[in-house]
Amino acid sequence: MLKSLDHLRLTPESLNNPKKVAIIDVGSNSFRLIVITYQPHHYFKVTDEVRENVRLVHGLGATGKLSAPAMDHAVEVMQLYRSFCDSQKITDIVAAATSAVRDAANQAEFLRRVEDESGITVRVLSEAEEAYYGYVAAENSTILENGFVIDLGGGSLEVTRVENRRSVRAVSFPLGAVRMTEDWLPNAPPGKEALNTLRNHVRKHLDTISAWFKHEKGFRLVGQGGSLRNAGRLVQKMKGYPLDELHGYIVQRDDFQRMVKKMESLTISERRGIPGMKADRADIALGGALVVDECLRFSDSPQMIVCSQGVREGLFYERFLEGESPSLFENVRQASVMNMAHLYAFQAEHGDHVAALALSLFDQVARLTEDPLMTAAERELLWAACMLHDIGMNIDYNDHHRHSYYLILNSGLPGYSHRELALIALATLYHRKGKPSTGELSGVLETDDDRRLLKITACLRLAEQLDRSRDGAVREVKLRMRNDAAHLDIYANHDVAVSVWAAEQHADVFEAAFGSHLEIRRGG
Amino acid sequence: MLKSLDHLRLTPESLNNPKKVAIIDVGSNSFRLIVITYQPHHYFKVTDEVRENVRLVHGLGATGKLSAPAMDHAVEVMQLYRSFCDSQKITDIVAAATSAVRDAANQAEFLRRVEDESGITVRVLSEAEEAYYGYVAAENSTILENGFVIDLGGGSLEVTRVENRRSVRAVSFPLGAVRMTEDWLPNAPPGKEALNTLRNHVRKHLDTISAWFKHEKGFRLVGQGGSLRNAGRLVQKMKGYPLDELHGYIVQRDDFQRMVKKMESLTISERRGIPGMKADRADIALGGALVVDECLRFSDSPQMIVCSQGVREGLFYERFLEGESPSLFENVRQASVMNMAHLYAFQAEHGDHVAALALSLFDQVARLTEDPLMTAAERELLWAACMLHDIGMNIDYNDHHRHSYYLILNSGLPGYSHRELALIALATLYHRKGKPSTGELSGVLETDDDRRLLKITACLRLAEQLDRSRDGAVREVKLRMRNDAAHLDIYANHDVAVSVWAAEQHADVFEAAFGSHLEIRRGG
Repeated sequence: MLKSLDHLRLTPESLNNPKKVAIIDVGSNSFRLIVITYQPHHYFKVTDEVRENVRLVHGLGATGKLSAPAMDHAVEVMQLYRSFCDSQKITDIVAAATSAVRDAANQAEFLRRVEDESGITVRVLSEAEEAYYGYVAAENSTILENGFVIDLGGGSLEVTRVENRRSVRAVSFPLGAVRMTEDWLPNAPPGKEALNTLRNHVRKHLDTISAWFKHEKGFRLVGQGGSLRNAGRLVQKMKGYPLDELHGYIVQRDDFQRMVKKMESLTISERRGIPGMKADRADIALGGALVVDECLRFSDSPQMIVCSQGVREGLFYERFLEGESPSLFENVRQASVMNMAHLYAFQAEHGDHVAALALSLFDQVARLTEDPLMTAAERELLWAACMLHDIGMNIDYNDHHRHSYYLILNSGLPGYSHRELALIALATLYHRKGKPSTGELSGVLETDDDRRLLKITACLRLAEQLDRSRDGAVREVKLRMRNDAAHLDIYANHDVAVSVWAAEQHADVFEAAFGSHLEIRRGG
Repeated sequence: MLKSLDHLRLTPESLNNPKKVAIIDVGSNSFRLIVITYQPHHYFKVTDEVRENVRLVHGLGATGKLSAPAMDHAVEVMQLYRSFCDSQKITDIVAAATSAVRDAANQAEFLRRVEDESGITVRVLSEAEEAYYGYVAAENSTILENGFVIDLGGGSLEVTRVENRRSVRAVSFPLGAVRMTEDWLPNAPPGKEALNTLRNHVRKHLDTISAWFKHEKGFRLVGQGGSLRNAGRLVQKMKGYPLDELHGYIVQRDDFQRMVKKMESLTISERRGIPGMKADRADIALGGALVVDECLRFSDSPQMIVCSQGVREGLFYERFLEGESPSLFENVRQASVMNMAHLYAFQAEHGDHVAALALSLFDQVARLTEDPLMTAAERELLWAACMLHDIGMNIDYNDHHRHSYYLILNSGLPGYSHRELALIALATLYHRKGKPSTGELSGVLETDDDRRLLKITACLRLAEQLDRSRDGAVREVKLRMRNDAAHLDIYANHDVAVSVWAAEQHADVFEAAFGSHLEIRRGG
């Protein structure tokens, strides 16, 4: 399952000469500039971000044109972004416009003005392209094998059907959050009739894709876009969710509908008081949430995974993964772990060595005990914890286990669920000492996850101690278990006194995890 | 006050070719190995640590010699440490022994066995040297101008008097925590008489330095050593202290005495249950705490600053600051801030530029408003916050303000009090957005610190926005204030549209801090 990761390895040169790209999402509601520092195929990191609420689509529904004030504001923001890039010496600028510009009768004037006044050439994405880049971002940051991606912007809604990680159908509807609000919800709170009219309008569009926009067994639905993210945040707050991470958050349809119901009766200023509401989104929040709600109902999806990435990340992946088509990671989880490891001064040899020893221990225990909590799923979490256990040393040697935990929880690992993220972070937290406990994260865990954590931690901790000197001296470990006694023979090329001494001090965690007293000795 | 820091600057070469030293503290109670990665005069970082409870001094009081089992254990641990260094390819090993080895009749045998069997040459520190290295560590990690350093080991107690940062008197007594326990407290809980005898014994020694071991106005008392740190941790837990940081914690004498009183009536296993107690110190904890208590009483010191550094750091500073005698930082606070900045990929130009703009704003507001909360003390905190505000980007751009806060609180800034540390961390937390609030840290702050924080944050945030493009374009700012209106003129070499736009969005924090509406414009 875990094949060679050499293609993800870094050389010192590549670390020291990163590239920089500024990507500007010329959206229908907001313009967002992100700066990404990267090394193609190796690692990337968002290193700056600026956002301005432009609301370019305002009035478009009525006139078919971008309004003069909106266009002026847009040009001014593009000039600012250009100055920003110039002063940071960023020459690689990608700007892409979506629904509002695509649909505007005065598109040409807009593009010319931006070009003339800011020097930035804006590429107008077709409906298919907009859906494609959203899909690419969703595929590269979640584990969507089969299902749907919905991307709700200010101007449009894209729906993509995914089979075996490939986009097989995609469509774009003019159902963006700003449009819906301006066209159907002039008042807040809106009347019952307005709500029904809007819902019927959305359904009429969705009816055209009823042949393929239906939940099936094993399908996932991934949601993107500013309004959708904000709606996800509201549900998270409403539920008192224990993690601060939004990306990967799973919204249950029932909860989503409760939140929409609540919002329906509020004025805009009351909406601003809802925990998690972004002030400059309050006015379009209900319009957007209703569209999402209709998508969930229509497709009969029981839940939705919130995705923080979107078109701009899709554009980025196209250049990051140059040569791949579509621009997808082969294995999102491996790519996530290796990206994080590289960003935090990963000690590759020690990480690899601990992983090899820990997985060998895991496999041997699993075989000897036939433990139902030691499957390929737990093994993969153990691998990730091994690769990341020491990244906290980037902060401080003291308490580096706590820092690893903090880094993993706060940076997130796209492709892993929050539950898996929590288990990986907890295993690193206990990789040196302490009795594993799920603590503040138990709210995102499942039954028996405390026992899973203990078993994963036991393998990690013993492996870490066996490589306490970080020199890879221990070549192999062989485990024998009989009744309640376990014997671990250590095979090494040279002196392993430190390994044996260090591992012996942690035999208790093995006993707690597997019920066997552990004896360690130099073998062979 | 803040002179050039060029001597603390790093070149890329120095960052990429650090040195490594292993320092082994061959203590009377425990042996501790720390690995420090460093660049002389520039930066350093503890990168590994191993500790083993050897209790070398055990039985020394009765026989005058190191016991055979203790010596065997000691030699075995030194062999392990040597293997550890070999496998990490550390060739620079400094090992220093203190009281137990110094006083042992069979010292020569011990040194020869360690040398023969581990290849490590142990230097035996004289009483004066042991006191000196403790003093150096205390001076380089606190702001001790005048007062005392007490260093309580397993075998001995060192007391040093400091005047104008120089050691002017130093003495060593055989009053270590293990010795006191073995000689005077055979039972736990001990009888009243045993307690009195021990206290009298300590006092008899302290009587010999009554001429100079007396608290004076402006004096501080800094305490070091494993037993003392553990005692400090117990008080911290007893008080429900809001920070996890021990170094720099100020213990009030009354609190210390309450903790000692409580411990006097407990068995050793009951002591193990006290929050904060290290299991392998529980037996000697009371003996050690009684010695510290007597020092506080005898010198009439109202409080004690806990110092996590000691002899081993003192030995390190000698080589880090080669050429200096004594081996002291000229300015501990500056050195702390610059060390942290370098460890976390400090962007020197942006940091310096933000500091220059923020301090200029601070000085102008202070002059115009004669605000009593804007003195040199607050100015120094502002400087530190400017230098460190972006270190969280080392973790992630998203939420980097929160990461800076986490890094500063968790790494600590030797030389700053916990209150100052909290204010610096809070200013970085609010350097981008949010309404400054002291939150969970209010327990370590003083009256009006919420207002101080607001003023410091206002200067930092405006300066940060003025250099939003990180290109140093804004050369100078000139502030005028009249009634409740303030005007900020910006002088720059070229286009500063981004600066003006960014700063305008944060004018509200200026208004909240200084009560004046702020207008920003390009000047001159």
